[in-house]
Amino acid sequence: MATTDKTGKTDFEWRVRVYYEDTDAGGIVYYANYLRFFERARTEWLRAKGISSSKLAQNDGVQFVVRSLSVDYRFPAKLDDDLTLSLTNLQTRRASIDLQQQARVTGSDQLLVGAKIKIACIQCNDGTPTGMPEWLVKRVTE
Amino acid sequence: MATTDKTGKTDFEWRVRVYYEDTDAGGIVYYANYLRFFERARTEWLRAKGISSSKLAQNDGVQFVVRSLSVDYRFPAKLDDDLTLSLTNLQTRRASIDLQQQARVTGSDQLLVGAKIKIACIQCNDGTPTGMPEWLVKRVTE
Amino acid sequence: MATTDKTGKTDFEWRVRVYYEDTDAGGIVYYANYLRFFERARTEWLRAKGISSSKLAQNDGVQFVVRSLSVDYRFPAKLDDDLTLSLTNLQTRRASIDLQQQARVTGSDQLLVGAKIKIACIQCNDGTPTGMPEWLVKRVTE
Amino acid sequence: MATTDKTGKTDFEWRVRVYYEDTDAGGIVYYANYLRFFERARTEWLRAKGISSSKLAQNDGVQFVVRSLSVDYRFPAKLDDDLTLSLTNLQTRRASIDLQQQARVTGSDQLLVGAKIKIACIQCNDGTPTGMPEWLVKRVTE
Repeated sequence: MATTDKTGKTDFEWRVRVYYEDTDAGGIVYYANYLRFFERARTEWLRAKGISSSKLAQNDGVQFVVRSLSVDYRFPAKLDDDLTLSLTNLQTRRASIDLQQQARVTGSDQLLVGAKIKIACIQCNDGTPTGMPEWLVKRVTE
Repeated sequence: MATTDKTGKTDFEWRVRVYYEDTDAGGIVYYANYLRFFERARTEWLRAKGISSSKLAQNDGVQFVVRSLSVDYRFPAKLDDDLTLSLTNLQTRRASIDLQQQARVTGSDQLLVGAKIKIACIQCNDGTPTGMPEWLVKRVTE
Repeated sequence: MATTDKTGKTDFEWRVRVYYEDTDAGGIVYYANYLRFFERARTEWLRAKGISSSKLAQNDGVQFVVRSLSVDYRFPAKLDDDLTLSLTNLQTRRASIDLQQQARVTGSDQLLVGAKIKIACIQCNDGTPTGMPEWLVKRVTE
Repeated sequence: MATTDKTGKTDFEWRVRVYYEDTDAGGIVYYANYLRFFERARTEWLRAKGISSSKLAQNDGVQFVVRSLSVDYRFPAKLDDDLTLSLTNLQTRRASIDLQQQARVTGSDQLLVGAKIKIACIQCNDGTPTGMPEWLVKRVTE
């Protein structure tokens, strides 16, 4: 469940700062913007494994897209917050990966927003689902 | 399920156009931006019932926030697409509403993106959950 | 000047609604988001002339990009505001167009935000500036 | 002019990464998003001087808003680009500051996007222009 608190291992962490661009008139981070934060963390998780989104597209003709997600909004982040985004690879399949992604204020255990996100590998030219190249599977499961 | 195809009644429809701002380098609508589209549809659904977000906050001191959501991305929307967003009130509770929201190209039956979204009523001053005022419950269930 | 009040002719008007997505924690529309509004108005101005961004790219291999702009922020727009965006074609050159774009609350004469924006025609494949096709020049100056 | 190349001193630099969220279907960074990047750099410039946007609002009841800007788009940034944003305080007035802000690929001298941005100090409660507190003037001119 997206609502699961921090348990077990975390594969990657990435920090983001909350700017005015991320907030709304309610004084808190706009709900869609956590998906932007989560994508930054996914991208940097892949980059830390030597996988660049743009090179993946150019060299292998594939890219990751989000197939489905569920998000649980528990507490709001605010302007100037320093957030730590944690990412856990729950399961790697042939053509998709299930990730758990969570947002907390850096240094705090309190879960603000938790998500389960399934990303799938597609061919860039026509968007059809495709199995990940062997080397890619290996990297994301290391 | 967020993956449910169009069945049963639709309470409201709202059309949006896809501009460059909504797309990404993959040539399709960026995944977080459907949440922006869905919020526009929710806001206009409320407005059609005589409920304005800003007046709700000013007069009643309450606002709706998204508590949780699940989204299923089936097919991508593209630049210049004319989308019809449908909204169905699945269940009204004392302090929250479960909505089904879906995106299709106008005139097409094919589901592009489907979501189930729970919005909750909170007090503007401190963000605590609160029951909806009687008149509000009545309006959203009409 | 971007600061010029409404004078002379207006070639096109387009209305947009301000949603939570457009605002920031200051309670007003985030400054970058007027550029999103202005792009919507430009796109609809072209569409009203039978010019679709996606078809222009597919059929003619060209697209418009913003080359430069100046913006003057006079008064802020707020949540739920119904804005009218006006557009005036100040000058059509061989490979670029100078536009004046302004935002007001619908029904009000008070200028909120005014801009002068130069859009240029480029080749999609390599981004080099290119003269507009004859038919395109004709349409945008009609 | 916004088109001025790098000359003279730079007061501050901040790096940002280009993600899918920042790009559009043209394959490049969407023009409005440079304003988001520039705001991040301004915010971090102030933070480096011990000035937090949220505390400024809470403690002094003032905030900075953008009063006017001009932007010159020379070359586009692309997905995965590592950008260095430079900021120069051109002039500090009693109630406003003129900044030059520029974006380059990190390690490159080529100017991608250059801007001149005037930020003004306003009272949070009613948005009226106000002189900066003494300590604030001192900090931003150090």
